[in-house]
Amino acid sequence: MIQTVNPDEIIAHCQAIAELSEQPGCTTRTFLSPPMREVHRILRVWMERLGMSVSVDSAGNLRGYYEGLYTDAPRLLIGSHLDTVPCAGAFDGVLGVVLGIALIESLKGRRLPFAIEIAGFSDEEGVRFGMPFIGSRALVGTLDAALLETKDAHGCTVAQAIRDFGLDPSGMAEAVLQRPLLGYLEFHIEQGPVLDQLGLPLGIVEAIAGRTQARVSFRGRANHAGTTPMHLRHDAVAAVAEWILAVEHEARATPGLVATVGQVEAIPGASNVIAGEARASLDVRHAIDAQRTAGVDRIVSAAREIARGRELTFECSAKQEQRAVACDPKLVLAMEKAVERAGFPLHRMTSGAGHDAMILAQKVPVAMLFLRSPGGISHHPDERVLSQDLAAALHTGLRFLEQLEELHG
Amino acid sequence: MIQTVNPDEIIAHCQAIAELSEQPGCTTRTFLSPPMREVHRILRVWMERLGMSVSVDSAGNLRGYYEGLYTDAPRLLIGSHLDTVPCAGAFDGVLGVVLGIALIESLKGRRLPFAIEIAGFSDEEGVRFGMPFIGSRALVGTLDAALLETKDAHGCTVAQAIRDFGLDPSGMAEAVLQRPLLGYLEFHIEQGPVLDQLGLPLGIVEAIAGRTQARVSFRGRANHAGTTPMHLRHDAVAAVAEWILAVEHEARATPGLVATVGQVEAIPGASNVIAGEARASLDVRHAIDAQRTAGVDRIVSAAREIARGRELTFECSAKQEQRAVACDPKLVLAMEKAVERAGFPLHRMTSGAGHDAMILAQKVPVAMLFLRSPGGISHHPDERVLSQDLAAALHTGLRFLEQLEELHG
Repeated sequence: MIQTVNPDEIIAHCQAIAELSEQPGCTTRTFLSPPMREVHRILRVWMERLGMSVSVDSAGNLRGYYEGLYTDAPRLLIGSHLDTVPCAGAFDGVLGVVLGIALIESLKGRRLPFAIEIAGFSDEEGVRFGMPFIGSRALVGTLDAALLETKDAHGCTVAQAIRDFGLDPSGMAEAVLQRPLLGYLEFHIEQGPVLDQLGLPLGIVEAIAGRTQARVSFRGRANHAGTTPMHLRHDAVAAVAEWILAVEHEARATPGLVATVGQVEAIPGASNVIAGEARASLDVRHAIDAQRTAGVDRIVSAAREIARGRELTFECSAKQEQRAVACDPKLVLAMEKAVERAGFPLHRMTSGAGHDAMILAQKVPVAMLFLRSPGGISHHPDERVLSQDLAAALHTGLRFLEQLEELHG
Repeated sequence: MIQTVNPDEIIAHCQAIAELSEQPGCTTRTFLSPPMREVHRILRVWMERLGMSVSVDSAGNLRGYYEGLYTDAPRLLIGSHLDTVPCAGAFDGVLGVVLGIALIESLKGRRLPFAIEIAGFSDEEGVRFGMPFIGSRALVGTLDAALLETKDAHGCTVAQAIRDFGLDPSGMAEAVLQRPLLGYLEFHIEQGPVLDQLGLPLGIVEAIAGRTQARVSFRGRANHAGTTPMHLRHDAVAAVAEWILAVEHEARATPGLVATVGQVEAIPGASNVIAGEARASLDVRHAIDAQRTAGVDRIVSAAREIARGRELTFECSAKQEQRAVACDPKLVLAMEKAVERAGFPLHRMTSGAGHDAMILAQKVPVAMLFLRSPGGISHHPDERVLSQDLAAALHTGLRFLEQLEELHG
C-alpha cells in the first residue's frame, strides 16, 4: 500500500480547526467571521509547505494551486466548505478541504499531467446571510451584484463583510474558475445513516437529490372541544394528521423517495378548541426529478381527497423546486474503479443533502465520495469520522488520481 | 298561552348589556371591571320594579330576591354569569339572568309557594384571574382566603378587586346560599351545534360532562430530512399523527365521547429536520366518568403501542380530571313535563362545557335548560339566539315553576 498521511493527523487537523469559533465552547464559523482568518493561516502554511501557491479570492475562498507536469495543464478542483452551522461538528465541510491537501501531501511532490486546485469555500451553510453557497457561486460566476447586497441580521451586506475581511469584492471576476478543467472532487461525510447501517466506509455519490419544499394548510372550522359532537367536526388537526401519514406512506412506497413533515401547527392552538386551521411543512427529495414531482403530485392529491372527505379546504403554497444534480458518469466510473483498486466495497448512493458540488456542476463535471458518519450524526458536536474510513478515502483518492492520469496522461 | 315578556325585549336587554364593555367595539367584561357597575344598575332597576329586593354580595354577585307566598318559604335560585370572555357574544351567561328576571316579570306579581332568587354571577369565565367560577364558588362557600389572594396580570388580588369595586371581602360568609333550597335553574345557550342540527329549540341537560385534560409527548430521533431513508427514521411527527387519528377513532367509536387534540408542536420544528419530539394536548369528555376514563385508557394504550411500533418513547403528563356532574333527576323530570306541557319536543342532552350549575350542584339540586345556538356559534360576536326559542324557554320556564308548585305547594 502507498504510504499516505496518517489518518489520525487528519482528524487532529479538523479538531484543531473546530476550536476556531465565534462561540466559546461550541464550533460556529459563519461567512468571513474573525476565526476564519486563523483557519486560512493554518491551511495556508500547510499548503505552502507542499509547494502550493495560495491566495484568498474576492468571495473569501481559500485557493491553493498545485502545479501539474506542464504549464496550462488542465486542473482538477478538490474542495468543500470551511464555514459551519451553529454548534457544528468538526468534520462537515472542513474534512473535504483537509483530505484534499492530505492527498497532495501523499503525492510526496510527484507531479501529475494535471494541476490540482484546492478550494476551501467561505460559505456553504448560508447561516449568516440566509443564502447558501456564497463561496462556490463565486467560482461559477453567479455571485452577482444583487446577491452581494444581501444583508445579514445586523444590516451588513455580503460586499461589506468581504471588505471588512480585507478583501475587494470588485475583483469577483477573478474568482471564477479557470479552464481547462478536468472536474471537481468533493470528499464529505455522509451526514446520514446509510453507510453506517450497511457497515461500509465509503459511498460513491451518483446524484444530489432534487427537492420540493412547500407549505400546506388545511382549513376547517374552529369549535368548542366540549360541545361539538364528533360527527359535526371539521377538525383541521385530524385532517393534517391523516395527511402526514399519507406523506409517510407515499415515501415508503416509492424507492428512493424521502418525504418529511418537520413543522406542524394548530390554529388557534388551544387544548379546548377544535383547530380551525392546521399548517405544516413538506420536504420531498429524490435523485430523479420525475419521480419526485410525481410523488409530490400524489401527496397533494391525497391532501385534497382528505380535505374533501372531511369538508375542509386545502392549500399548498410557497412551493420551491430544486432540480436533481447528476454527478459526471465518467468521473463516477473512475471513482468506482478507484474504490475497487483500493480494495473497498462498492456502494453507489444519492446525496439527500445539498453540497458545493451541486453548484460546481453548473460549470464542471463533478464527483463526490462520502465517508461513513457513525450513527448518522452531523451538524452536531458528536459528529465523527473513523480513522479507518479516512485511510480508505485517502487510498481511494490516490487511485482516483491514477485513473485521471490514465485518462488524461 | 300565558302572556310572557316579549322575547325581542329579552334580546334587546342582552344587546344593551353587551354594549357595556372594557373594550371599544367588542364585548369584554371581566370580574368586577368598571362596566359591571352599569350592568348591575340596569338589572337592579328592572328587578326593583318587579318588587324584588336587590343587593350585591361580597363576591360581586348581583342578587335579587322575589318573596314567596309566606315567610321562610324555600327558595329556587335562578342564575347565570354576567362576565364574558374577551370579544364575546351578547348571550352567553347574561341571557340566563335576563331570562330569570323575565320569568318573574311574566308572573305579573303572582306569588308562589317558594321564593325565587336571581343570581348574576360576577365571574364564570375566569378570564381575569385564570380561575373560573369566582361568583358561584362564593354561593357554595368554597371561595376561601387562599383563592381571594389569587392575582391578576397586574398583581391585583381578588380581594383587592372586590374592595376596588366598593365591596367588602370580609363579608364573604353572608354570600353563601341560604336554606331551605328547592334547587338551582340555569338557562343557557347551548354553545354547541347539536340543537341547531336537530332543528330543536330546547335541550334538557342531564349532566355536565366530566373531563380529562393531558399533555402528551412522543420522543424519537431528530435527523436530516434529506439524508435519512424512510426505514431508518424515528419520526415523532408521524407518530403523533398516527395517534391523533387513533384519538379521533376512539371518540367516534364510543357514543357520547368527545376527544380533541387542539395543540400540536414539532421539535425542533424545521422543514428540513425530521422531528425528534412531538407534543400535543388531549381533551376527553363524557357524561359518564367510567366511560371517559376507559376512553382515556384506550387512547393512552394506543399511544404506547404506536410509540413501541416506531421505536419511540411516549409520555403522558399534566393529567387533570374533572368529574361529571349530574343534574337532579327530579328536576330533570319536572323540566321534561314542563317542555311537554309547553308543547315543545323533548331532547335530553349532555353539556360538554362547564357551567355555574356544576359548582352549585355541590350544595343544591340543579337543572339546566339549553337554548339552541344558531350555527353552534358562541364566545364570538356572531353568537345569536332566536326570538322563537326565547318564547319557548319562557313558556317552559313558567310550566317548570308550575311543576315546582305542584311538588312543593
